[in-house]
Amino acid sequence: MHPTRWGDPAAVAPLPETTRGLVELAFGIHESPAVEEVTLPPVGLPGAVLDELRSLLGDDHVHTDDATRRLRTRGKSTPDLLRARAGDLADAPDAVVRPATHDEVAAVLDVAVRHHVAVVPFGGGTSVTGGLVARREGYAGVLSLDLVRMKGIRDVDPVSMTAVLEPGLRGPEAEALLAGHGMTLGHYPQSFEYASIGGFAATRSSGQSSAGYGRFDSLVVGLTVATPAGTLELGSAPATAAGPDLRQLLLGSEGAFGVITAVRVRVRALPAEKVYDAWHFASFDQGATAMRTLAQSGLMPTVLRLSDETETALNLASHSDVGGESTGGCAMIVGHEGASVAVKRAAVAAVLTELGGTDLGEERGRAWAAGRFHAPYLRDAMLDVGVLVETLETATFWSNVDRVYAAVRDALTGALGEKALVLCHISHVYETGCSLYFTVAAPEADDPLAQWLAAKAAASDAMTGAGATITHHHAVGTDHRPWLSREIGEVGVGILRAVKAELDPTGVLNPGVLVP
Amino acid sequence: MHPTRWGDPAAVAPLPETTRGLVELAFGIHESPAVEEVTLPPVGLPGAVLDELRSLLGDDHVHTDDATRRLRTRGKSTPDLLRARAGDLADAPDAVVRPATHDEVAAVLDVAVRHHVAVVPFGGGTSVTGGLVARREGYAGVLSLDLVRMKGIRDVDPVSMTAVLEPGLRGPEAEALLAGHGMTLGHYPQSFEYASIGGFAATRSSGQSSAGYGRFDSLVVGLTVATPAGTLELGSAPATAAGPDLRQLLLGSEGAFGVITAVRVRVRALPAEKVYDAWHFASFDQGATAMRTLAQSGLMPTVLRLSDETETALNLASHSDVGGESTGGCAMIVGHEGASVAVKRAAVAAVLTELGGTDLGEERGRAWAAGRFHAPYLRDAMLDVGVLVETLETATFWSNVDRVYAAVRDALTGALGEKALVLCHISHVYETGCSLYFTVAAPEADDPLAQWLAAKAAASDAMTGAGATITHHHAVGTDHRPWLSREIGEVGVGILRAVKAELDPTGVLNPGVLVP
Repeated sequence: MHPTRWGDPAAVAPLPETTRGLVELAFGIHESPAVEEVTLPPVGLPGAVLDELRSLLGDDHVHTDDATRRLRTRGKSTPDLLRARAGDLADAPDAVVRPATHDEVAAVLDVAVRHHVAVVPFGGGTSVTGGLVARREGYAGVLSLDLVRMKGIRDVDPVSMTAVLEPGLRGPEAEALLAGHGMTLGHYPQSFEYASIGGFAATRSSGQSSAGYGRFDSLVVGLTVATPAGTLELGSAPATAAGPDLRQLLLGSEGAFGVITAVRVRVRALPAEKVYDAWHFASFDQGATAMRTLAQSGLMPTVLRLSDETETALNLASHSDVGGESTGGCAMIVGHEGASVAVKRAAVAAVLTELGGTDLGEERGRAWAAGRFHAPYLRDAMLDVGVLVETLETATFWSNVDRVYAAVRDALTGALGEKALVLCHISHVYETGCSLYFTVAAPEADDPLAQWLAAKAAASDAMTGAGATITHHHAVGTDHRPWLSREIGEVGVGILRAVKAELDPTGVLNPGVLVP
Repeated sequence: MHPTRWGDPAAVAPLPETTRGLVELAFGIHESPAVEEVTLPPVGLPGAVLDELRSLLGDDHVHTDDATRRLRTRGKSTPDLLRARAGDLADAPDAVVRPATHDEVAAVLDVAVRHHVAVVPFGGGTSVTGGLVARREGYAGVLSLDLVRMKGIRDVDPVSMTAVLEPGLRGPEAEALLAGHGMTLGHYPQSFEYASIGGFAATRSSGQSSAGYGRFDSLVVGLTVATPAGTLELGSAPATAAGPDLRQLLLGSEGAFGVITAVRVRVRALPAEKVYDAWHFASFDQGATAMRTLAQSGLMPTVLRLSDETETALNLASHSDVGGESTGGCAMIVGHEGASVAVKRAAVAAVLTELGGTDLGEERGRAWAAGRFHAPYLRDAMLDVGVLVETLETATFWSNVDRVYAAVRDALTGALGEKALVLCHISHVYETGCSLYFTVAAPEADDPLAQWLAAKAAASDAMTGAGATITHHHAVGTDHRPWLSREIGEVGVGILRAVKAELDPTGVLNPGVLVP
């Protein structure tokens, strides 16, 4: 992906007329100048290191050209895009290396340790928390360890319903390989089209179908990890009491403890049916109560998603065939996937109706499913016209949802002004609580980066202040690192530092990320 | 509990006639002499340390009398009982301290660190893997940190369906407190009547209703842990991507990383109905396939348990009203608990019938439920008549079950001789695999302890050799420690050592347990 934009250039569309109208209505801003091409800092790595890497991997798999380096610079947060749009690609890696096997990954780490080169594992490049921005100071250079050549599937076990996936597989590639065996992973985050298996594991990703298939961490049965201290092979059984679960220490380690080179995942049979219904609730609170009731009565659909009043109104404004803002209330998407969904769909519908919901039918459900990966493109189009757009998310227990929702909204509007639009949805539901995912849009200030960083800090303070997590599924990266100690405490930070020192004693792995 | 026996003396019964007949049939052995009272080593802790503890906790909560120390000596494995029966209580703690609060626990740890005294956290005392046998060499003494005074319930949240339980609560005490709020934890390991909330968490316990309620580690939402490095407060949300899940590092830490002083658990509504059916399958393999089909089609009952042919025959021999050994095949227990079990019960019955099962009705299911915690008493009665009895368990993926089952059986009969009875059941079922729980009975040799340790080593070698875990729900303790590096590798062991050094730098916490 280009450093200033999301996704496939062929998929980029101009701002849709409906949304363009909304932008003008909201902010009165018109299209800004086209983004200029940006230049890269020179390659700083010593030639001897590059030669060693070339002799290890072959000349074809060590890249120092600007085009390749540009595509491996930072991730896809709005600050990442704003920096790139402002001509700042100072975080570009010196070289991009492409090992093809676990042993080659381990060998690259060995070179990095001996020459004190920072290593940034790179899968899909979709981090939105600064997970691909290695600290450069004190290092001989920065290597992007691109896992693009590790796209295999191994050990498909149709009896145990597991398979081993290599880390460089993107979402659609993994699903295509599994589909050949009649299997699915069912992991569909918004970044699905680009994000990778290794990245899902390293960041504790959660997909839009998490209610049915589970968070990615719950789908991981085993892990192989290359570290400077040696190889970790974890996951001896479906469950074990043989000490702490070390898989859960590597899941979420964001490349700071090691490079994940294989993931054994739990898979399911390809669903025979998929049906997505839309429902209407009078209020966000009423809809959330319905979600909680489903989760606590064991009637969880595959997809369960509730937009608040503002998000519902905005979505409806761009779907004039369904209705306009004046309808009010909140839209819920309820999806069922599996072998015989009719019984479950009816049971869920009965509960939702009992709790005040109105069935809006499949049309809007299908529209959601069709557009489920498109939001990042829309963000690019909004940035093009001078509207700052970003998302952030958290999770909390049901009894704390109102408090967190209000606190984060207040923090964002307090920082960005009353003209800011703050939308929210719940898209991950558990027996004990749920996620809250906020989308923010505001007229760009003179320094939109500083403008956003202040809003982000205010929102993060609000989350931790209200007892919620700093992130439900976007990982820590560099952006959330200042808040991590508020969440896990100084003793928890001490544990992370101790594990880091054990596995990566010279600190070459993704320095500056995760560990405070 | 008395160090030579399980449970409540009032609940001890002589060997039932049916089983006594079976023992004589199988081994031709008659009752051995009554076990003699055993004496304790003198208290080795310096008086100044005891005085400091008394000033901290009060005289009433620091015990050095033999009766109290005897009840806090070791756990309840057969080797523990055999050592006690042979008059060896060398592992008795020097003193038993009973802090009442988190701060008092932290203060005890501070005393222990300053005087280099080993600390063994004690909940229910039901460890069967040597988890309560601290290494004494190099320490000023051994303290049993008895959590018996920490039996509170706090922060009951009926919206989020969570509650905070203190670690000293035994299973029935926790259930009684939760029942007062219309809630249940649903965690029923065989040790339920004595084992404690803290112990469940520290050992990654799994209960007989794990298919419906989940393993204990999946029920833990948050943890408070006192460590020499300070207090850990973990669990900020139902799910989070804020780095590695440190809760999963403390779950299974067996007192070696810290003392768990509070556990926030996920709870469920008290079930309106409970029904347990028995089913018959022609073979263990056929029954296991039926279990796998249920798990992989999302039709999991609350309890799912399958005895192999030998265990089925032996159980039937002691239930003459149901039938004798000649009926053959395997018995399965299928339990449903919840609000409206009829629909699920019918759906499960349809699948089981389709896969060759025969419904034996509720009578034998009820008999299982009534006797589900009684096996340890039977072991005492068997030991009394010179029959060595012990259990061990593992877990593996479905495609590996046959191999592990055969390997462990062969190892046990190889070590104990052809006269040994080896029974097995599957009692914990997952989409990807299951547990295998073995019960072994053999005529006692001249040195039954050495006899058993050789058999245990052979079985453990067989498990790790066949790619299974060394324990599904009994933890590592001292007994499994020699095999842990085969399961998590030397890099994994390095992580445990690094975390231990960070949280317990002087190594006073349960030394000799868990960490190789």
